[in-house]
Amino acid sequence: MSTEAAKLVSPHGGELIDRTGSRPDGVESLEAVILSSRELSDLEMIANGALSPLRGFLGREEYESVLESMHLASGLPWSLPVCLAVDEAPKGDRVALAGEDGRLYGVLDVSEVFDYDKKREAELCFRTTDTAHPGVARLFDQKSRYLAGEVTVFERQTPEFPELALDPVDTRAVFAERGWHRVVGFQTRNPIHRAHEYLTKVALETVDGLLIHPLVGDTKAGDISVQVRVECYRTLIECYYPADRVLVAAFPAAMRYAGPREAIWHAICRKNYGCSHFIVGRDHAGVGSYYGTYDAQMIFDEFEPHELDVEPMMFEHSFWCRRCGSMASTKTCPHGPEDRTMLSGTKVREMLAAGKVPPIEFTRPEVAEVLIKASHR
Amino acid sequence: MSTEAAKLVSPHGGELIDRTGSRPDGVESLEAVILSSRELSDLEMIANGALSPLRGFLGREEYESVLESMHLASGLPWSLPVCLAVDEAPKGDRVALAGEDGRLYGVLDVSEVFDYDKKREAELCFRTTDTAHPGVARLFDQKSRYLAGEVTVFERQTPEFPELALDPVDTRAVFAERGWHRVVGFQTRNPIHRAHEYLTKVALETVDGLLIHPLVGDTKAGDISVQVRVECYRTLIECYYPADRVLVAAFPAAMRYAGPREAIWHAICRKNYGCSHFIVGRDHAGVGSYYGTYDAQMIFDEFEPHELDVEPMMFEHSFWCRRCGSMASTKTCPHGPEDRTMLSGTKVREMLAAGKVPPIEFTRPEVAEVLIKASHR
Repeated sequence: MSTEAAKLVSPHGGELIDRTGSRPDGVESLEAVILSSRELSDLEMIANGALSPLRGFLGREEYESVLESMHLASGLPWSLPVCLAVDEAPKGDRVALAGEDGRLYGVLDVSEVFDYDKKREAELCFRTTDTAHPGVARLFDQKSRYLAGEVTVFERQTPEFPELALDPVDTRAVFAERGWHRVVGFQTRNPIHRAHEYLTKVALETVDGLLIHPLVGDTKAGDISVQVRVECYRTLIECYYPADRVLVAAFPAAMRYAGPREAIWHAICRKNYGCSHFIVGRDHAGVGSYYGTYDAQMIFDEFEPHELDVEPMMFEHSFWCRRCGSMASTKTCPHGPEDRTMLSGTKVREMLAAGKVPPIEFTRPEVAEVLIKASHR
Repeated sequence: MSTEAAKLVSPHGGELIDRTGSRPDGVESLEAVILSSRELSDLEMIANGALSPLRGFLGREEYESVLESMHLASGLPWSLPVCLAVDEAPKGDRVALAGEDGRLYGVLDVSEVFDYDKKREAELCFRTTDTAHPGVARLFDQKSRYLAGEVTVFERQTPEFPELALDPVDTRAVFAERGWHRVVGFQTRNPIHRAHEYLTKVALETVDGLLIHPLVGDTKAGDISVQVRVECYRTLIECYYPADRVLVAAFPAAMRYAGPREAIWHAICRKNYGCSHFIVGRDHAGVGSYYGTYDAQMIFDEFEPHELDVEPMMFEHSFWCRRCGSMASTKTCPHGPEDRTMLSGTKVREMLAAGKVPPIEFTRPEVAEVLIKASHR
């Protein structure tokens, strides 16, 4: 490891896990377990070290520890179960891992199979058992037992945007090459309007570099397509960010919509990608009104200082203030609503659908153009 | 300590030192040591805990350790000597501490008197022995031995701005009362123009509160008077900051102009005042061209992560960019000099002296007005 790389934040648990490997002989004759798209996304992230220190799907002891205390049995913080649901225990001690299309991705060496309580998992992870919550709905639809064990992945998933498909080892290499030590990660599943541009730039001002890390795994219906979002990111960065201070890469996780616990999990994953800092806005990873506005920020206080070893950067909603003559939030602007340009997401979607460019204080015109074109495709 | 207060960053070394006490009998008959204004300022800060864990002026072992390794003998980081210069050893084991006007402030229980090498101290602390450097000049003018020992202060100095005279225990109480946990400290010895307003607001966006902590101790000739600066701070905050997110208090330190080492020292002092974060701009605490632009930022890397336990927030120079339509720095703006409003300090002083209001992108008009009035008094 070079001196530069040594100055990046260490992976969670100290070591970047690599669970990729060569295709074992006879894998076709193994019993195959079919993974859901969420499980496949987890598998990919175990393989490339994004979920370090995990080497496979959680066993019962780890699962219980994560649910009850947000820590692995080793004492390392970990906020969400990463489990593989099956109907029944496989017969052999090794199984093949397949996608829903039957394609084989890896093998799992079975350590145990255990029953779990969906309602309890929902309450502890999602703070609700309401099946209108997409994460709860998916959990309740799952098979009823968990299959645990280390995995080896011999077939990587085909990325939709190959040039954005950077594993933690790749983003770390870019950061090291650019001489960045302190890097802030930004999670998003939306186009970046002025408000989020402001957050990322505020964060960037105090560190060396910015990783714009859009989620490209499963999101919910109604979210803007990943293709359009990626075009928006490219346009915005080309026009308004210094190329040598920002990197865009795809975050292959599937949304769980677990709000606070997912914010912690997102921060830990980004540490594995080499981020020392992570942006946590209001309602991070939330859905509906299941979480309080600040829950995903406050949960960081449940950990000891430096225990996570990734610095959360908490933000308020931001807006353009005419009297300040700048973007601001209620934390930095003393003026009233009459001085502020604030638009609801619904209003902006309506404007874009009608081919209208939102005010420049809300959306950069170049980004509005991409969105308007997309809404008329 | 309340739960709220317990969530503030701990003082340096864990305990807020209080070296105030009642006036001992017979203090008038003790041999008196006359303190320079810099030493008197240090005394005040030992008394009120701003220099925690120091309980007095440094002995030889501590002095050597600070000079050589930027740590106290206990292993705690400490970057600048805090010493009391005398011509010769006092006769008794207790001396009275007096100002240049003869007023008595405290007593010192003598632990030792030792010789020191001014040239070596200058090289290690100031990185130069050039007497054109104001810190070096003062050091070379000092008496030739150091008197060490714990102090007890029975007479506090009369503050110029009583309502700004907040000890660490006071700022901590304000932070706790307001429910702030993460507080960023901003050191300044100039009026705040848009560039520094931007830094403080960028910093404030990710924490709970901002302590604007202007230095009111000795500064060098040519700096704008503290009265005018305080009026500028008040005006700016009234017009452009939310009152519940900012506190202005006086930092009673004397400038040493030791650049990098002083940046560390400033950060540690602010931790004692309750700041978890501290803004470090370019050329912090520098003078002339004795230090590289980024030296005061890079020195933070010489400490282990979390060793200082106060997070530096490093900033670049900032400016207004017409194409961004916002304040920015080279880290966040990709555009060229032709799009940016940049004025030299000299140019701005000339404009103000001529009664001209600088561009709104450079100085808020309300602040310009204070400065123009002051320059015509």
